[in-house]
Amino acid sequence: MTSTATALQLDSEQTTKLHNLYRHLHAHPELSMQEFATASLIEKQLDGLGIEHFRCGGTGVVGILRNGDGPVVAFRADSDGLPIEEATGLDYASTDTGTLPDGTVVPVMHGCGHDTHVASLLGAAEVLAGSLDAWSGTLVLIFQPGEETAAGALAMLDDGLWDRAPRPEVVFGQHVMPRPVGTVAISSGPVAAMADSLRVTVHGQQSHGSQPQDSIDPIVMAAHMVTRLQGIVSRELDPRKSAVVTVGTFHAGLKENIIPASAEFTLNIRTFDQDVRGQVLAAVRRIIEAEAVASGAPKPTIEEMYRFPQCFNDPDAVPSVIGALRLALGDEAVEITPPMMGSEDFGHLGTAIGAPSVFWMFGGTPAAGHEGPGPTPVNHSPFFAPELEGSLAGGVSAAVAVLLSRLGN
Amino acid sequence: MTSTATALQLDSEQTTKLHNLYRHLHAHPELSMQEFATASLIEKQLDGLGIEHFRCGGTGVVGILRNGDGPVVAFRADSDGLPIEEATGLDYASTDTGTLPDGTVVPVMHGCGHDTHVASLLGAAEVLAGSLDAWSGTLVLIFQPGEETAAGALAMLDDGLWDRAPRPEVVFGQHVMPRPVGTVAISSGPVAAMADSLRVTVHGQQSHGSQPQDSIDPIVMAAHMVTRLQGIVSRELDPRKSAVVTVGTFHAGLKENIIPASAEFTLNIRTFDQDVRGQVLAAVRRIIEAEAVASGAPKPTIEEMYRFPQCFNDPDAVPSVIGALRLALGDEAVEITPPMMGSEDFGHLGTAIGAPSVFWMFGGTPAAGHEGPGPTPVNHSPFFAPELEGSLAGGVSAAVAVLLSRLGN
Amino acid sequence: MTSTATALQLDSEQTTKLHNLYRHLHAHPELSMQEFATASLIEKQLDGLGIEHFRCGGTGVVGILRNGDGPVVAFRADSDGLPIEEATGLDYASTDTGTLPDGTVVPVMHGCGHDTHVASLLGAAEVLAGSLDAWSGTLVLIFQPGEETAAGALAMLDDGLWDRAPRPEVVFGQHVMPRPVGTVAISSGPVAAMADSLRVTVHGQQSHGSQPQDSIDPIVMAAHMVTRLQGIVSRELDPRKSAVVTVGTFHAGLKENIIPASAEFTLNIRTFDQDVRGQVLAAVRRIIEAEAVASGAPKPTIEEMYRFPQCFNDPDAVPSVIGALRLALGDEAVEITPPMMGSEDFGHLGTAIGAPSVFWMFGGTPAAGHEGPGPTPVNHSPFFAPELEGSLAGGVSAAVAVLLSRLGN
Amino acid sequence: MTSTATALQLDSEQTTKLHNLYRHLHAHPELSMQEFATASLIEKQLDGLGIEHFRCGGTGVVGILRNGDGPVVAFRADSDGLPIEEATGLDYASTDTGTLPDGTVVPVMHGCGHDTHVASLLGAAEVLAGSLDAWSGTLVLIFQPGEETAAGALAMLDDGLWDRAPRPEVVFGQHVMPRPVGTVAISSGPVAAMADSLRVTVHGQQSHGSQPQDSIDPIVMAAHMVTRLQGIVSRELDPRKSAVVTVGTFHAGLKENIIPASAEFTLNIRTFDQDVRGQVLAAVRRIIEAEAVASGAPKPTIEEMYRFPQCFNDPDAVPSVIGALRLALGDEAVEITPPMMGSEDFGHLGTAIGAPSVFWMFGGTPAAGHEGPGPTPVNHSPFFAPELEGSLAGGVSAAVAVLLSRLGN
Repeated sequence: MTSTATALQLDSEQTTKLHNLYRHLHAHPELSMQEFATASLIEKQLDGLGIEHFRCGGTGVVGILRNGDGPVVAFRADSDGLPIEEATGLDYASTDTGTLPDGTVVPVMHGCGHDTHVASLLGAAEVLAGSLDAWSGTLVLIFQPGEETAAGALAMLDDGLWDRAPRPEVVFGQHVMPRPVGTVAISSGPVAAMADSLRVTVHGQQSHGSQPQDSIDPIVMAAHMVTRLQGIVSRELDPRKSAVVTVGTFHAGLKENIIPASAEFTLNIRTFDQDVRGQVLAAVRRIIEAEAVASGAPKPTIEEMYRFPQCFNDPDAVPSVIGALRLALGDEAVEITPPMMGSEDFGHLGTAIGAPSVFWMFGGTPAAGHEGPGPTPVNHSPFFAPELEGSLAGGVSAAVAVLLSRLGN
Repeated sequence: MTSTATALQLDSEQTTKLHNLYRHLHAHPELSMQEFATASLIEKQLDGLGIEHFRCGGTGVVGILRNGDGPVVAFRADSDGLPIEEATGLDYASTDTGTLPDGTVVPVMHGCGHDTHVASLLGAAEVLAGSLDAWSGTLVLIFQPGEETAAGALAMLDDGLWDRAPRPEVVFGQHVMPRPVGTVAISSGPVAAMADSLRVTVHGQQSHGSQPQDSIDPIVMAAHMVTRLQGIVSRELDPRKSAVVTVGTFHAGLKENIIPASAEFTLNIRTFDQDVRGQVLAAVRRIIEAEAVASGAPKPTIEEMYRFPQCFNDPDAVPSVIGALRLALGDEAVEITPPMMGSEDFGHLGTAIGAPSVFWMFGGTPAAGHEGPGPTPVNHSPFFAPELEGSLAGGVSAAVAVLLSRLGN
Repeated sequence: MTSTATALQLDSEQTTKLHNLYRHLHAHPELSMQEFATASLIEKQLDGLGIEHFRCGGTGVVGILRNGDGPVVAFRADSDGLPIEEATGLDYASTDTGTLPDGTVVPVMHGCGHDTHVASLLGAAEVLAGSLDAWSGTLVLIFQPGEETAAGALAMLDDGLWDRAPRPEVVFGQHVMPRPVGTVAISSGPVAAMADSLRVTVHGQQSHGSQPQDSIDPIVMAAHMVTRLQGIVSRELDPRKSAVVTVGTFHAGLKENIIPASAEFTLNIRTFDQDVRGQVLAAVRRIIEAEAVASGAPKPTIEEMYRFPQCFNDPDAVPSVIGALRLALGDEAVEITPPMMGSEDFGHLGTAIGAPSVFWMFGGTPAAGHEGPGPTPVNHSPFFAPELEGSLAGGVSAAVAVLLSRLGN
Repeated sequence: MTSTATALQLDSEQTTKLHNLYRHLHAHPELSMQEFATASLIEKQLDGLGIEHFRCGGTGVVGILRNGDGPVVAFRADSDGLPIEEATGLDYASTDTGTLPDGTVVPVMHGCGHDTHVASLLGAAEVLAGSLDAWSGTLVLIFQPGEETAAGALAMLDDGLWDRAPRPEVVFGQHVMPRPVGTVAISSGPVAAMADSLRVTVHGQQSHGSQPQDSIDPIVMAAHMVTRLQGIVSRELDPRKSAVVTVGTFHAGLKENIIPASAEFTLNIRTFDQDVRGQVLAAVRRIIEAEAVASGAPKPTIEEMYRFPQCFNDPDAVPSVIGALRLALGDEAVEITPPMMGSEDFGHLGTAIGAPSVFWMFGGTPAAGHEGPGPTPVNHSPFFAPELEGSLAGGVSAAVAVLLSRLGN
């Protein structure tokens, strides 16, 4: 890569269009594996850039920009929103709704910033498509659905991704985070936690609310499970190991004067290490099953919802990425950090074909710091609002820089 | 009352029609204050009996059967179903749905047996309408909506019930219970508990499921509230006093990898005594507010949903009711029992005009005992299934007997 | 009994001596089955009254006052103190200590008022010994040790009580309570609850306080048991039935930076009904064993410490007792009450020989009400302080009156 | 240091004597700040080696071995035992008892291996005292009492340690751990956690065990505190930060049928970072105070028992220590590890005079691995039993090697 690389960027008009595209994406988020309008919009953008593409994994889109001989490099952006009611107050805030698999209609928000990923990758594609003489090789653009449910990467692979697209020598990806715009953070080795999601249904016995003696109260039972699960992280694990056991949903009962027959809650478990993962999963089952016995209830039903693999940055591939990012963003803008507790199904894409992966975080918080009361809103908060101009500028620059570090002349 | 009274009953054809009417009511339950089809059906039946009627309190129906000079006596049957998914396996089981005030679509079931109340009162009305020379006076038939939400009696009173119908000297009512068909249970003095229902919303802080440090976890907070509330009955009250604190619903979260912003649960509280009631309500607030402080969370929102008054049988009016029931059903069939923990808004109807009330329980369990595994299903269980023929025979007989004890020649 | 009976009482000098005796007893309480000095003092008093006596059951004393032909009647006073640090501020407050069976040295207090029982019975004996012409028959005075541990009555029976003393036609007993001095309360039928005491040892795994991962934390485990046990009374029992599950002691650990190997707690369970008792005991075991499984710990050790039988007032014997008490104390002074949750091993004494028993409560609170801040201190409180003069006057009068109702000429 | 250094060691007879000394120390442990016999024994040993010494900080002993010009170097061994009942089954196991500050008599055990520290330092002193021509300078031997209560180092400093002994250029120390004998582990930077110990007294209201309504139950209150405290580590901290909140003791109640007036528990808190420490301490107070409010109880009393500072290895001083250890024990025997969660007051000694410190862990587990069932017993376990010969050989070798790296010719 030469210094040319850093000079490549969108012009003012292109930037304005990208901002508008982002606003549209943000205002119209879609739930995981239902990114129909988002996929169509991506396809339309790729058409506008003259980039060939195909649908893959339902609502996934793969763009291929061939530019002569040279390496094949892939870059992935995930595209799904979340069932969160947006509270950012932005003029392009989402008011859209979606329907969960169980039929519940919910508000939807780009609460994890995947809209910035899509927009940044489209921006980077526009830069590279407009400067074909600065590089050669093949760029594979992967717009992946369903990251939040760990379904999308596997769906694309199942749908023949690497039979239909050229196989890359490396797969890149990036994620917006609450750090100053224009900066990035990167790890070598583990980059994100493994995640396991479980659905637990406890089976009690229904009765009139005034007759607890005829019930096995599933709400009291599940509440004891929730409080008892706290002891896994606090008492069972080596304090120097990281793990998270979150109960993200808890639903039981339709009427206050009926003790319901059952309660359902879902768990999200984060670990970095297979031993710790095994220890936590065993403890979760042990506690849930024993608490049901303590209630005199039948064995609860524990279902695996999905699992995120470990996301791992290839140590051999990381240094050149760091170099490219430093050159593009400045030395101080690139921080080497420990892995995050968040999870990613990004790793599946490279692992499936033995290609190394590198994934980094780019900043979404105004350089001057978060305005307004309270701490900076984090991903999955209803207040999470990446600063539009800076986030996209940083996301596009980082993507262009890293891609050119492999593809540049 | 003479022995004639006990001889008055439905003939075989009338009985068959009543059974069919009951099957229809059972198959088509409606949620509280939405008993539109039920009200229409009641009106049609009253028309068939030539009994004048008017709508009152939305979906309430009042029938008036005037039969010359004599006392005015009222009898009330409540008509609403519950958000329960019926699991009785009956061939006339409900598969209908309804919509809760918050928009949730739910299955509906006559899980408290109000269909037997409506059918029994219509049956009794048919008996009395068919034997006008056996009695004189005025019978006021009150088909009340919305008992389960404590809304219906007040709605009828607000809608001018006692300005529009003759004021009775006594108000009767009855409820089906899991006891042998053909038997009744009755108390003197308190007959049912006071009930208070509260809705609690705890306010946490939303974050990514992998970042509990950025959250105030409302599910863990509410789970501690639920477990801590158990101590009110177990540690704070005189063990010789009765009280129930039920958490009937608990809802939080839409996705397992998001720690939600809030959790909501509802409480149903039963007491017999104003001091105990005050003590329990104060303890509930104290615990909920302190647990929020323990979580570092804002003060939770506690809303009163509704309140059931004490249901009280006038001690002066009870003996003649007992006498009439013994004559009609046999001495052994009438049990004097302590009050039940269940609640009733029935008491409002008489209290509003200073008229005494008497309320009793009639049996719904097969005389030979409950068939099938497990204990007899209780009211509000998805398996609650009054034995059709015996329940209605008992309900009609009890109603006719007690009415004639006041109205009979 | 004639009106003479009520005229029989201690003279002023006798009363002063009795007050002094009481002050001494109160200042020098002894733990259960260690009432050595108390027994000697009782023997000395009986000697002074010329009443024959023998030791029975270790520290029990039986006095026999024979006065010609007539019925044999027994009256029991229990004599043990409790491991409580007295905080009454009385000038005759106890500062004595005792040694628990496990070797722990503890402060001791007459925190349940058994000193008033001993003094009242000695006072009544003095009255009757001084008016032999007012009655005839045989009075058996039972000064029973170890009521608080349910050991004393059985120890006396095991030591041949009824082979060594004349068998009575009825056994009487009384207990001081926080009600106005000069009043009594009495029940017919059940008078006190059954009690079961259990000792639970949970087995964890010891480790350094900084290495919870190497431990099975017995304190967290036992804390979850304590909180979970609350659900028995709040959720598993018919709210109209009375039961108490108290954890009275909890001991674990010697140093804050060591997670200990085990924790021990003791339970005291009160019920009135064998079905409820069985249900509670089964639930206690179920919860404790399941919580150990939830901790991945071995099965806890659950030992039965002792059991109190139901204390039952013979319905045929109660009316004459009520009559005598009303005559002696005034009609308003005698209240018919429901049974108390407290327990008594008194019932063993009569049950062993098929003799009926009657037990009542006499008042210890100043007639003008409790002085000082807060509610009236109850039995087992460190502030429990029966009002000396009134309590003894009432206790002596009640005992004399009831005894003379059987023995009086 | 030359290769001579590693050749310096105890001869066979000296080794046998050291083993016997260790057995004696192990059999006769003493509680913190009560190490009277241990101090005398150390003094006797120093006398035998001709090393001058003085008492410091009560039961601390300081030896000074002057050997001409050269650097002053200090080495510290801590000497106290723990209130643990030894269960190792060793023939030299402790059966001694001690008396806690509150008067409780408890078994005492060298459950943290401080006996190996004392013996190893005495062994190293014997080696250096016997090879004065191999080194020059001054060796300050610090036998410190009361490490387990964070009292000993401060007591020695308060008693003028550095006014009475030559001030060293570096302070060394070591700790036995469950790792193979002959190996060591060392960190650069933080080496052990900060620790804070708190004593919490919750104030309830005493009553008879059958009358919970008259009590504020301190055992149920404290149990809720214990379970609620688990949420600090599990929900409030960044999962990538390490912290431990241990409740090491819990004491309440003397009798199962009395609800006691209060409960006391102690907390031991470990953190590495002042921010996390502040966050944990604030959360502990917040939860404990709020749970008291939830019980309707007065504000609990929270007392600071003691505090361990961070123990920090000077990064400039570490490399030469690592070099010396590798030379003495072999390259594979020296592991660079993350800091341990354990705490140490060792750091006070150097910090007080601005001298750098280096602290490492030496192995106590048989090279062939732990024999017997279950995992290797850890420090503070009643089964913790360093393998005698290997532990002392390793401890002496490491000490000699590191000392000679500074003092050797």
